[in-house]
Amino acid sequence: MIINIAVIKGDGIGPEIIDGAIDVLKKVEEYYGHRFLFKEVLAGGSAIDVTGEPLPKETIQVCKECDAVLLGAVGGPKWDHLSGELRPEKALLSLREELGLYANLRPAVLYESLKGASPLRDELLSNGIDICVVRELTGGIYFGEKGRNQKGKLGEAAYDVEIYSVGEVERIAKVAFEIAAKRKGKVTSIDKANVLESSRLWRSVVTNVAKQYVDIELEHMYVDNAAMQLIRDPNQFDVIVTSNMFGDILSDEASMITGSIGMLPSASLGYGSKGMYEPIHGSAPDISGKNIANPIATILSAAMMLRHSFKLEEEANSIEKAVEAVLREGYRTADITSAGMKLVGTKEMTKLIINKL
Amino acid sequence: MIINIAVIKGDGIGPEIIDGAIDVLKKVEEYYGHRFLFKEVLAGGSAIDVTGEPLPKETIQVCKECDAVLLGAVGGPKWDHLSGELRPEKALLSLREELGLYANLRPAVLYESLKGASPLRDELLSNGIDICVVRELTGGIYFGEKGRNQKGKLGEAAYDVEIYSVGEVERIAKVAFEIAAKRKGKVTSIDKANVLESSRLWRSVVTNVAKQYVDIELEHMYVDNAAMQLIRDPNQFDVIVTSNMFGDILSDEASMITGSIGMLPSASLGYGSKGMYEPIHGSAPDISGKNIANPIATILSAAMMLRHSFKLEEEANSIEKAVEAVLREGYRTADITSAGMKLVGTKEMTKLIINKL
Ligand SMILES: CC(C)[C@H](C(=O)O)[C@@H](O)C(=O)O
Ligand SMILES: CC(C)[C@H](C(=O)O)[C@@H](O)C(=O)O
Repeated sequence: MIINIAVIKGDGIGPEIIDGAIDVLKKVEEYYGHRFLFKEVLAGGSAIDVTGEPLPKETIQVCKECDAVLLGAVGGPKWDHLSGELRPEKALLSLREELGLYANLRPAVLYESLKGASPLRDELLSNGIDICVVRELTGGIYFGEKGRNQKGKLGEAAYDVEIYSVGEVERIAKVAFEIAAKRKGKVTSIDKANVLESSRLWRSVVTNVAKQYVDIELEHMYVDNAAMQLIRDPNQFDVIVTSNMFGDILSDEASMITGSIGMLPSASLGYGSKGMYEPIHGSAPDISGKNIANPIATILSAAMMLRHSFKLEEEANSIEKAVEAVLREGYRTADITSAGMKLVGTKEMTKLIINKL
Repeated sequence: MIINIAVIKGDGIGPEIIDGAIDVLKKVEEYYGHRFLFKEVLAGGSAIDVTGEPLPKETIQVCKECDAVLLGAVGGPKWDHLSGELRPEKALLSLREELGLYANLRPAVLYESLKGASPLRDELLSNGIDICVVRELTGGIYFGEKGRNQKGKLGEAAYDVEIYSVGEVERIAKVAFEIAAKRKGKVTSIDKANVLESSRLWRSVVTNVAKQYVDIELEHMYVDNAAMQLIRDPNQFDVIVTSNMFGDILSDEASMITGSIGMLPSASLGYGSKGMYEPIHGSAPDISGKNIANPIATILSAAMMLRHSFKLEEEANSIEKAVEAVLREGYRTADITSAGMKLVGTKEMTKLIINKL
């Protein structure tokens, strides 16, 4: 069976880290006898430079035809002067919508060997951090109507509509409950139901969906409290499910407390098996092309792709184990290094991981 | 001159901590020869219990007539079954709107003597934390149109409109710049301008207002990044200015990293000198009536009231110095205590502070 993978290297460190992930996938291909076909397409800043638009039609087409999309990172100061529709980030938003990827899975995991890099005190980390943030990705204020009018309280106004419908909340809640069933069995649904009508609908739909999952514990939490609880006691969370906007904020906060942003992958999924996989970190233009970027988040994103889109569980595990083994031996890229560790570059880190497969 | 102060004790620990603050104010009155008239009115859960509504008309009237409002805390599980318009929190939202309190000032300060209570590592605290969050309080998604309709993507939908007009952003930006001018001279404006139209208006208005404050450094930051930066390096912030919704989330995060939620006051201000002052912590029904609540945040809120609404700078300073002195001597309420400290109750803490005035 030939598996088609659309590859978007993107901007900044994107190309380097994607190259690392592809090398790992090629080794998996060889070792397990699969056949991966990589189709490189442009999106983001590099697409703007070449074609004038952040998401060329051809890219959408190829992504739709392929079995999964692997993405590096997009954006950078070079394109900051561009307005809304023409910015690199627009490519991400349109791809999510075009491919119907309504569920964004962002694991925030504390690596035992990287504990020291967490900004939180050791006492708070003694039970580890292992949170899976399930963020709704194709609805809410990101995709609601937006615009300008003269009906503001004090002059010209700009508005964005946060809107959620029953079916949209149902499907994302189901994703969260299914994931919780394979983990510690707890879902924390985060909203602002004491103020927002959309949150009140959200809360009642999630409560309804929970009835189909009697073994899962469901807790509701306000978003302001959640922003505090993540720092006060991160270990209380298992699966977090929340809206697009709150998920954007809270998933970044959750990954920061692990201290290992360069390590964290993400998956964006829809109805079928197709998904888009990317590191949660950005394009870091300041360190691009210097062979110092950490390829691990992208390599682990490739592992998520093998698991979620291709059901290659064993292959995914072998990548994850290889990463852990290399870290245990003390190898580190610059972003996660500390005293006594062996500092390596992007390429060396990739090779070390490949050798452990 | 008689100064009229509307007092809303509220729910849970509200009455105890307000009593503490009033005792402190009475001592200030006596010592400095002022005349404070306290007018107690109901709002929140206790108002619901007595009158059936969270914000009786009389309360609004008295608050409008008085020179300032001092508030304990509202809400609790007892009223959680009530719906939107009838909840205790509704009193807060309506008071903000009725009194035109568009600027919410929430200082997040690390107390040297309470450093150990911060969830962040000591290395991150070596330069202290002293952030003033300026949150827009009468606009945005809190007060935009909200409702239900059948036009959702997948079934019945609920929506809330985030809306900001030029004048609303201008006035809150000015508050932030004025405050920064008396502090370290830096304003970080937080938005999601890469996605939201309201944020793009916000960003351009703040940029314009900045032209009147050439000595102040202005930085723009996306809200997801801000949620990370607050934990990664809180000392980079001086004044943060942001929308109602983002301010709700980020100010709670900022106060949590100081480790001293029981210590942090807040002020809500409008055009004139009138303001509403309250601790940022909640009503903590679980510990109410036990003489263990920390009255300091409320006492410091009273100090903010003296400074902002009555221009009694010296009196405000003397309260703040008294609090610091008591902490330096090792007295602690249960929420902030640690090994070797002298544990005291709400009343004892209040007396200790009064004795230092
Ligand atoms: C770049 C931006 C539009 C995007 C988002 O807000 O979704 C990013 O922050 C993310 O979380 O993937
Ligand atoms: C109780 C709630 C409505 C309120 C808000 O969101 O403004 C509270 O969280 C606050 O920050 O004062």
